[in-house]
Amino acid sequence: MIIIMSSAATTEQISRIVERIERDKLDAHLSQGEERTIIGVVGDDRQIDRTQYLAYSGVEKIVPILKPFKLSSRTFQAEDTVINIKGAQFGGAKVEVIAGPCAIESEAQILEIANTVKALGATALRGGAFQARTSPYSFQGLGEQALKYLKQAGAATGLATITSVNATEQVERVASYVDVLEISASNTQNYALLKAVGKTNKPVLLRRGKSVTVEELLMAAEYILAEGNPNVMLCERGIRTFETYTRNTADINAIPLLKQLSHLPVLFDPCDATGQWELVTPMARAAVAAGADGLIIEVHPDPEEALCDGPQSLKPELFGTLVTQIRAVATAIGRS
Amino acid sequence: MIIIMSSAATTEQISRIVERIERDKLDAHLSQGEERTIIGVVGDDRQIDRTQYLAYSGVEKIVPILKPFKLSSRTFQAEDTVINIKGAQFGGAKVEVIAGPCAIESEAQILEIANTVKALGATALRGGAFQARTSPYSFQGLGEQALKYLKQAGAATGLATITSVNATEQVERVASYVDVLEISASNTQNYALLKAVGKTNKPVLLRRGKSVTVEELLMAAEYILAEGNPNVMLCERGIRTFETYTRNTADINAIPLLKQLSHLPVLFDPCDATGQWELVTPMARAAVAAGADGLIIEVHPDPEEALCDGPQSLKPELFGTLVTQIRAVATAIGRS
Amino acid sequence: MIIIMSSAATTEQISRIVERIERDKLDAHLSQGEERTIIGVVGDDRQIDRTQYLAYSGVEKIVPILKPFKLSSRTFQAEDTVINIKGAQFGGAKVEVIAGPCAIESEAQILEIANTVKALGATALRGGAFQARTSPYSFQGLGEQALKYLKQAGAATGLATITSVNATEQVERVASYVDVLEISASNTQNYALLKAVGKTNKPVLLRRGKSVTVEELLMAAEYILAEGNPNVMLCERGIRTFETYTRNTADINAIPLLKQLSHLPVLFDPCDATGQWELVTPMARAAVAAGADGLIIEVHPDPEEALCDGPQSLKPELFGTLVTQIRAVATAIGRS
Amino acid sequence: MIIIMSSAATTEQISRIVERIERDKLDAHLSQGEERTIIGVVGDDRQIDRTQYLAYSGVEKIVPILKPFKLSSRTFQAEDTVINIKGAQFGGAKVEVIAGPCAIESEAQILEIANTVKALGATALRGGAFQARTSPYSFQGLGEQALKYLKQAGAATGLATITSVNATEQVERVASYVDVLEISASNTQNYALLKAVGKTNKPVLLRRGKSVTVEELLMAAEYILAEGNPNVMLCERGIRTFETYTRNTADINAIPLLKQLSHLPVLFDPCDATGQWELVTPMARAAVAAGADGLIIEVHPDPEEALCDGPQSLKPELFGTLVTQIRAVATAIGRS
Repeated sequence: MIIIMSSAATTEQISRIVERIERDKLDAHLSQGEERTIIGVVGDDRQIDRTQYLAYSGVEKIVPILKPFKLSSRTFQAEDTVINIKGAQFGGAKVEVIAGPCAIESEAQILEIANTVKALGATALRGGAFQARTSPYSFQGLGEQALKYLKQAGAATGLATITSVNATEQVERVASYVDVLEISASNTQNYALLKAVGKTNKPVLLRRGKSVTVEELLMAAEYILAEGNPNVMLCERGIRTFETYTRNTADINAIPLLKQLSHLPVLFDPCDATGQWELVTPMARAAVAAGADGLIIEVHPDPEEALCDGPQSLKPELFGTLVTQIRAVATAIGRS
Repeated sequence: MIIIMSSAATTEQISRIVERIERDKLDAHLSQGEERTIIGVVGDDRQIDRTQYLAYSGVEKIVPILKPFKLSSRTFQAEDTVINIKGAQFGGAKVEVIAGPCAIESEAQILEIANTVKALGATALRGGAFQARTSPYSFQGLGEQALKYLKQAGAATGLATITSVNATEQVERVASYVDVLEISASNTQNYALLKAVGKTNKPVLLRRGKSVTVEELLMAAEYILAEGNPNVMLCERGIRTFETYTRNTADINAIPLLKQLSHLPVLFDPCDATGQWELVTPMARAAVAAGADGLIIEVHPDPEEALCDGPQSLKPELFGTLVTQIRAVATAIGRS
Repeated sequence: MIIIMSSAATTEQISRIVERIERDKLDAHLSQGEERTIIGVVGDDRQIDRTQYLAYSGVEKIVPILKPFKLSSRTFQAEDTVINIKGAQFGGAKVEVIAGPCAIESEAQILEIANTVKALGATALRGGAFQARTSPYSFQGLGEQALKYLKQAGAATGLATITSVNATEQVERVASYVDVLEISASNTQNYALLKAVGKTNKPVLLRRGKSVTVEELLMAAEYILAEGNPNVMLCERGIRTFETYTRNTADINAIPLLKQLSHLPVLFDPCDATGQWELVTPMARAAVAAGADGLIIEVHPDPEEALCDGPQSLKPELFGTLVTQIRAVATAIGRS
Repeated sequence: MIIIMSSAATTEQISRIVERIERDKLDAHLSQGEERTIIGVVGDDRQIDRTQYLAYSGVEKIVPILKPFKLSSRTFQAEDTVINIKGAQFGGAKVEVIAGPCAIESEAQILEIANTVKALGATALRGGAFQARTSPYSFQGLGEQALKYLKQAGAATGLATITSVNATEQVERVASYVDVLEISASNTQNYALLKAVGKTNKPVLLRRGKSVTVEELLMAAEYILAEGNPNVMLCERGIRTFETYTRNTADINAIPLLKQLSHLPVLFDPCDATGQWELVTPMARAAVAAGADGLIIEVHPDPEEALCDGPQSLKPELFGTLVTQIRAVATAIGRS
């Protein structure tokens, strides 16, 4: 961190900051320019609250040098993290495809979709049991019953299973049913929940909230990693911008950027990112071309009757086309 | 809701939608234009998932007519909700001031600040026990110990007490110590938590998340109200935009807009909304001039040593000036 | 357009609106519901200012049905517009690549780059003569002298030439030197300029401004088309969002969306969209996978010495790699 | 500026940067840490393109210390600029009110409004002659004829006159009719136009574009000031965010921030900032409470028949109420 003093800063103000730096067990390196003093802070300052220095009189600006995330960074671990779940390898050479309905609606529904998506190339099955909905009057999910159906469908097909967990008190229960815990976009910065899933040994799929920066996403991952759970997958699913023709704006830039900054696998959800089934396939291709390690696709045999996210769900035949096309793109860039 | 069919929609597609409308226990009213059919949906469609109709073939667009929030709307209740807490009246003629440190740091600290802010005109005391921090390496709060200190300081001064609750499992415990439960901006759409505080009988201060729309804020309030807790206060605290010179962008438009749409009290937090103590006082004046029912101000005797939010905390003397100035503005617009 | 009256609207207010509709030479179709009246406006209402109806007492909301753009829409012209410029076919099966330096710095520089990018697969040459810079103290371009150098380099290599035009009074002069007029992102809604280029017969490359919606971009195209110039190419180059790790956020969603809404060719500039040369190649691949008809790439033999946009310019060898990779992706999706 | 080298930077890379700094006629000050080298650049680096240093191999980050704007900054001029126009003093103790219709529609209309707003307390008259409209099919203004009507209405009432200028070639002509040239929000970064108005001696009202940062607004002002025209007024009029219930989001934070950073007068337009006449008065009060030096208000005797911006225009009686209320707020904070 570098602390830039204002041109009017007094010697006494500078001394107070140097004292604070030493109290924080770091070293201060002063550089007296013509107009102002600049203080270099030497040492690992990521464990302190750097913005606090802005509260000191005489400080104009602070400039972090070390990025605030550690365990999730490429500096900490240069090689890619590869997470193996029932044969699927997230972060490896193959682009993995997770598929399933927005909500688990019945035993028959999830089993049918499981068989379908497996036959079409998916390696993991996802479905919602506890839905996070904007309105209290919308369908809130079948709850624990849905977890049982999901587990059965996973067992029947051999597919890894994924569902989202929304409250600390649900974590243990949900973890007993599924292979991967998902943190939904409205909970990316629900720190109590992040700590709770960090205490399990289950892989975690961490979605980026609609207004969470890339840095904040990696800090959210840091919460999980710092609790001792190294199996974190990141998922871009669209951010909120001024554009209203699409439900969200897919931040495809974030895919190569996250691969550059972090060793964690990076997935993409083109359904949430666009909100329109017509845009899902081209955006799935785009994400793979940009370097995504996997995709999450909402599939429903009858989107008109789906209990949630119908407008952005693919029918099985379209899902099949999507898988074929993204395999072609993956091959073109040297993946599979 | 109005459903606008595409110009290529078939009779069969239209019939399927009419059937669905009837299945949803609503009435369909068809209007056959030259180029396209428009279907009016008659009845209260707020309890259904309206976007689901977009999944039907032949639908171009749906247009909600009824706003999705009910219990929080002016239509449901025309007169202002006034919430009485230990003499403070949120939503009444007087502009109430909540003040306190970002974090409760010690028994002495919170008691000192409580006495100070009371003397300067505050009617409620706020301090953090469980902090929601972007980094797992930042100070996370003193936890339950802090709740005890806060309760003591409240008892000693007679001030109402407020603190934030971050996980469903904390709700009961926190509610046993304080007068008002706060939902922090990272939890505005943490629906499990909203339901949990909705089941208590404590007043709730619901902060707007940094990328939550006005409509979504009212839907979050709806989660609490629908559980039977009518004592909800809304709080604007800045939204995330492209502007980086300030920590957030204060959405002052939202203040008169929320007062127009809803009967709930509307507060404003100029500290979070700006991130800079120099901007806090003018923005507090602006919010009052725009019609805010109350303010939340971070006060610390020594911001340089504060364990969080030092750069946006006011020293007591500045807080005194702020209170004087906002009282003058309140008087100018016919409040007190 | 549908006009939704408030539930309190009077008969007299409704009559005034019907009169206005008739004055606007359109037909009104009333639908009296239990709670409110809804007025359907029959006819092509795109030539009137629809928001004006919001000014009428008793109106709650207006809902456009026809999208406001006409000439640029797929409804107006179903088949793709293909623009031929010196052998390059924008909007055809082949993904075209426009390349060149941010600024034309000398006769030798532009000629060298022209030869290089042609050899590596570019079909058009782009360079700036009049730069649009945020700071008046930054390099503003060589002006007309640069236009001469660009024309010479185009003639020497046979490449089509492109440069941006920033003021109405420059249009004629710039058009006399180059094959394509570019509207830079800071001028997307400079309507006087759009009208001026619409009066020429030169193809126009219209960049999307950093906060211009997809609808507004098509309305900007409409300004050019309405003046009689049908040769418009659209270019996505990143929008402004809250994310700061990248210069802009590439809105890749906009590529398939624009192809769906409009018949005009859609290009993508990964340099402006990311601001970092390391991200340019993966994002170029992503855009092609999403359906872009062409790319604009900044190439400089020595980015460290470039007079502008050095950090996002590719060295020739990297540009060669990019072209190879995007050709592979194009082939994978059935283009060339 | 401080240049932070990556930890892998070589001695040769550092040398190249030092050479470049010297070539740019600045001094380099090296600080060799344990892990990385930091280079301080000593001297006024605002006249160079600082981002260019990011193009150098081995550079991780650059950190500007001097803000990029000079002539518009408080550092350059500590005391407020006060601009006198026909008795109105923009930037002085009194809050000035500019009022008028969005568009000048006829000789009678502008004269009637001029008399009305003068009687109610306005000190300047504004009306559009050349409208900047999103759609080419919307009313584009009466052009030069409107300028004549505006001049007459100004002469008849003694009010200062203001209108917007949209193209370089219009500048001289428009300047011959009015007292103040306005740059509309779609032209804030139309640099050719900024230079052109900078060459006149007319006061300029510079609106902030909907996605222009505070820093970019001051850089736009810098273009005008650098041409020798010191009479620049800044105007906040709402920025574009994700919120759609209001037309724009009023960035009230920007008002005290601009007053802190710059000596130029700061105005606010609550009509554009909200898009709804019901919100105009509370937001006008808010801006004055936050420290605005003046307001721009759209007034029309019959908003339903206005040729543009009807929904956000005030009827004369409401305008009168607004003026009364903002005078009370101004008095409460020690202004008039």
